[in-house]
Amino acid sequence: MTHTLEFWFEFGSTYSYLTAMRIEEAAGARGVSVRWRPFLLGPVFGAQGWNTSPFNIYKAKGDYMWRDMARRAARYGLPFRRLPESGPGAFPQNGLTAARMALVGMEEGWGEAFTRAVYSAEFADGHDIADTTLLQRLAAEAGATGDVLARAQAQGNKDHLKANVEEAFRLGIFGAPSFIVDGDLYWGDDRLEDALDAAAAG
Amino acid sequence: MTHTLEFWFEFGSTYSYLTAMRIEEAAGARGVSVRWRPFLLGPVFGAQGWNTSPFNIYKAKGDYMWRDMARRAARYGLPFRRLPESGPGAFPQNGLTAARMALVGMEEGWGEAFTRAVYSAEFADGHDIADTTLLQRLAAEAGATGDVLARAQAQGNKDHLKANVEEAFRLGIFGAPSFIVDGDLYWGDDRLEDALDAAAAG
Repeated sequence: MTHTLEFWFEFGSTYSYLTAMRIEEAAGARGVSVRWRPFLLGPVFGAQGWNTSPFNIYKAKGDYMWRDMARRAARYGLPFRRLPESGPGAFPQNGLTAARMALVGMEEGWGEAFTRAVYSAEFADGHDIADTTLLQRLAAEAGATGDVLARAQAQGNKDHLKANVEEAFRLGIFGAPSFIVDGDLYWGDDRLEDALDAAAAG
Repeated sequence: MTHTLEFWFEFGSTYSYLTAMRIEEAAGARGVSVRWRPFLLGPVFGAQGWNTSPFNIYKAKGDYMWRDMARRAARYGLPFRRLPESGPGAFPQNGLTAARMALVGMEEGWGEAFTRAVYSAEFADGHDIADTTLLQRLAAEAGATGDVLARAQAQGNKDHLKANVEEAFRLGIFGAPSFIVDGDLYWGDDRLEDALDAAAAG
């Protein structure tokens, strides 16, 4: 029996962008269904003693990440731009509001298209995804109706996202993207195929 | 024109074991020649503020690494055991003498077989690779003659290994295994195919 794969993503994460853009096709080819789980890396990194992305803390690793991302994006045929180190749109971007909206969207059926649109705005076009006007436009284009921002900022939805972060801790998640198949953790866009194969094997 | 691929490895590194055991076949299939470059991660980690492997410092990441290594080793058909957290043979093992001997072996023609044998002793059999009696036996089995340990501990060879570590810093290397193709850095056993493809493309 094929298992569902859980795709845990953070909007500030470069490698989550790669996965978000290619998981639908890769999962479909194996008959695996995917559950998209937005969460926040900030509290996860904080628990490891970091106040920003480790790619900013460890310079050699960060320099490598941007080079590796450019190569990987090219391999997948995806546009990609390096974000600035400071100023508007600097890496890592604040994905809190985007994550809250995505959570609403996953319940209402427009979350996956919205998530892809946000990642494209960020890493293909270099826009600042903390911009609520941009996010509301992308949500509407993905099929959302009414005051999405209000639903995203409602206390119940904020608590839902917090609960997701707590669940990520319990699952042993320490970075993004992460995949859960039958309780087993896989980390990184380069483990997507392993995780999908495990899910397909059931 | 096909480029040479440089394979930078540290004997304490779990993922370097995977690469050491499979690089010959993978490179041969693409007609790429490989230059094996032993170095030490201790000074590299020290520069990042770590006094041991990050897999020991960050527990969630470490727990995941052992799980991921077991799955990846199974995928490649390689035996693998988790090393103890303390006591003889604890992770990360001290690969200083092994690296010095491997450096001699690379010049004398028995270094690659020796390197594979050391990794197997460590991660398949759980032996302590700081044991010079074990290392001398493995070197002899790989084709070394005479007093290998004395040649490994000679000042010129010690300086050679130090120079390798300095070169690793200059190349931007921050972990192992790492691959260099025409000056371009690739990190991790899961980037071996990308690096080989780049070398084959020339």
